[in-house]
Amino acid sequence: MHPMTRMNRRITLAQRPSGMPDDTTFGTDLVEVPTLGDGEALVEVTWLSIDPTIRGWMAYDTYLPAIEIGAPIRSGGLGTVVESRNDRYPEGSTVFGMLGWQQYVVASRGLRVLPEGVPPEAALSVFGTTGLTAYFGLLDVGRPNEGDTVLVSGAAGATGSIVGQIARIKGCRVVGIAGSDDKCAWLTDELGFDAAINYRTDGVRRAIRAACPDGVDIFYDNVGGPILEAAIANLALRGRIVLCGAISQYNDAAPSPGPANLGLLISQRGRMEGFIILDYMGRAHEATADLAAWVASGQIQYRTDVTEGLESAPDALLRLFTGANTGKMMVRL
Amino acid sequence: MHPMTRMNRRITLAQRPSGMPDDTTFGTDLVEVPTLGDGEALVEVTWLSIDPTIRGWMAYDTYLPAIEIGAPIRSGGLGTVVESRNDRYPEGSTVFGMLGWQQYVVASRGLRVLPEGVPPEAALSVFGTTGLTAYFGLLDVGRPNEGDTVLVSGAAGATGSIVGQIARIKGCRVVGIAGSDDKCAWLTDELGFDAAINYRTDGVRRAIRAACPDGVDIFYDNVGGPILEAAIANLALRGRIVLCGAISQYNDAAPSPGPANLGLLISQRGRMEGFIILDYMGRAHEATADLAAWVASGQIQYRTDVTEGLESAPDALLRLFTGANTGKMMVRL
Repeated sequence: MHPMTRMNRRITLAQRPSGMPDDTTFGTDLVEVPTLGDGEALVEVTWLSIDPTIRGWMAYDTYLPAIEIGAPIRSGGLGTVVESRNDRYPEGSTVFGMLGWQQYVVASRGLRVLPEGVPPEAALSVFGTTGLTAYFGLLDVGRPNEGDTVLVSGAAGATGSIVGQIARIKGCRVVGIAGSDDKCAWLTDELGFDAAINYRTDGVRRAIRAACPDGVDIFYDNVGGPILEAAIANLALRGRIVLCGAISQYNDAAPSPGPANLGLLISQRGRMEGFIILDYMGRAHEATADLAAWVASGQIQYRTDVTEGLESAPDALLRLFTGANTGKMMVRL
Repeated sequence: MHPMTRMNRRITLAQRPSGMPDDTTFGTDLVEVPTLGDGEALVEVTWLSIDPTIRGWMAYDTYLPAIEIGAPIRSGGLGTVVESRNDRYPEGSTVFGMLGWQQYVVASRGLRVLPEGVPPEAALSVFGTTGLTAYFGLLDVGRPNEGDTVLVSGAAGATGSIVGQIARIKGCRVVGIAGSDDKCAWLTDELGFDAAINYRTDGVRRAIRAACPDGVDIFYDNVGGPILEAAIANLALRGRIVLCGAISQYNDAAPSPGPANLGLLISQRGRMEGFIILDYMGRAHEATADLAAWVASGQIQYRTDVTEGLESAPDALLRLFTGANTGKMMVRL
C-alpha cells in the first residue's frame, strides 16, 4: 500500500533575532512528510515545551549548535507515534524528545517513551528537563545543607518554583524573587517559600538583605544582570551561586556588563558555577524517583501556562521574557 | 633596672584612599614603645612584605576589618625579638607575623618563629603567604590535571610566577600574562612557561586564543577586569577560574563593571571560585614541604624586588599597581 502523503506545517527560523524576537524572526512553511525508512518512526507532535534557552539556540552556537536558518525552531515536546518502523517506538506510544515547532517529525533516535499515566503537563514540567534542571542544579551544583538560606530568582518560573520547593524539603530557608505581587503571594502562600521579593517594586539589594539577614548560602540564578549583582552583594561566607540561566539578558542586542562586585567572591570564598542539564541525563532516574514521590505526597506543586495551537508558539516564547507566565510555559497542538 | 625608653616610628593611615594612594593617604608618627607586660615580646621589624591586598585593608572591611585611621599600615613582615617575656618568642629569634609599617611592635601572640637558615627573601616570598597562596589556590581551588592548559595573570608577580612553576611541575601547559616584554622573556626563558602574553601590546583575547588553542582549563587570576573577561571568552569545557586577586581594580574610585560574558560559565559548565589564604594556614606544612623541595631542586625560582628603609614602603606599594615590580615586593628596614 502506498503511504498517504501527509503535509507538515512548521514554524521556522527566518532570521536570527537581535533583541526581542518579532515577526521577522519566524517563518512558516508546509513540507511533505517523507516516507519512513527502516528504523524510523513518524511522530505527531501534541505538546511543545517552551523554554528560555530556545532564545539562545536561535541566535548563536551555545552548548548546542545554533538552529539553522529555515529549520524548524528546536524545542522539546511530546508526541504520539502514528507510524513506526522502529520497535523501540511502538505505534500509539507517547514519546518525549527534541521534536521542534512542527506538526510531524520523523526520527530514528533521541526519543524516550513516556510511561503510561503521566499527564503531559507533568511530563514536560516537573518530570521533564525543567524538574531535572531544578533538582541537579540545586543539589549537585549548589549542595545545600540543612538550615542554609537559599535565594532563587525567576522563582515563579517553571524551574525556580521547583528549586524552592526542593530546597524546603531539604530543610533550607527559601526566599524567592519574582516579578509581581501575585507571583510572590503564590510562592509564600501556596508553595511554602519563607519570603518573596517583587523585583519590580522592591529595591532588590536591600530586600535581599532584609529577607536574608545572615546572607545567602545558595543563590540559584535564572535571571542574571542586576539581580545577580544584588545577590552577590549579600553572599554569605562560602556562598554558592548556581548559574542556571540569565533570562534578563537573552534579548540584549549587545552584551551587558557583568556584576561589578565579583571581588566579593574572593573575600567571601564564594563559588559561582554553571551547568547544562544535558550532562545529567544519565542520572535522570535519581531525580525522577524523588520528584515523583514529592509530587505524590503534595510536597511539590507545579503550575503550567498553556497556549493553544502551533501558531501560538512564538507568543508563548515571548511570554517568558515579559514575565507574563507563571510556571511552565507549554503549547498544546 | 628601668627599661630604656624606645621610640617607634610608624607609617600610619591618614585617610582612606579613593583611587591610587598618594601623600594624603599616609602619615608618620613617633610613639613611645610601651614597657613589656607578662607574655609579651618586643620585636624590631627588619623586613616588610608588600602585598596588593594592603590596598583593600586601607579602604574598607574585607576578609579582615579595615585598618583604623591613625593606626600603622597592616603588613606582614619579619623581625628580631629584642626583648621577651614570652617563652615562645625567645630573644634573638626571627619571627614572622602581621608586624605593620613600623620599627617596633609589641606582641603576645600571632607570631611564628622562623627556622634557622631560611633567607628573609624566601621567608616572605616562596615560603610565605605568597607561596602558600600560589600553592593552595592552584592545587586546591583550581585542581589541575596533567595536560591541562593553565593561564596565569600577573604572571611575573610574586604569586603568579610561583603558580606557573607549580603548574609546570604538575604536568600542565602554562601561559602567563604580564605587562612588559622583559617580564614575558623572564617567564618563558627562565621559568619555563610555555608562552607569555604582554597585555600592554597584544590584543589579550586573541593572544589567549592563539596561545591556548584548546581553551583554558584553569585561569589563575590576580588581575580582574578586561583580562578576566578575555580569559572567560577562552574558557575550555569545565574550565575553572581561581579568583586570587583583582589588582587592576583595587584603585578604582568607583566599582568597574564585571565581565559581560558570564553566560559562558553556563554553556562551558565553568566554575569561578575565590579563596583567602588565611583559611589554609592549618595546612601550611603541606605546601612548605613541597615548596622547599622544589626550591632545593631548582624547579622553582623566585625573584624579589627590595626597597630600602621604612619610609620607602608607600612607594613600594605603588610599584605593585604600576607594574614596576618583578617578583615579590619587599622593604628592608
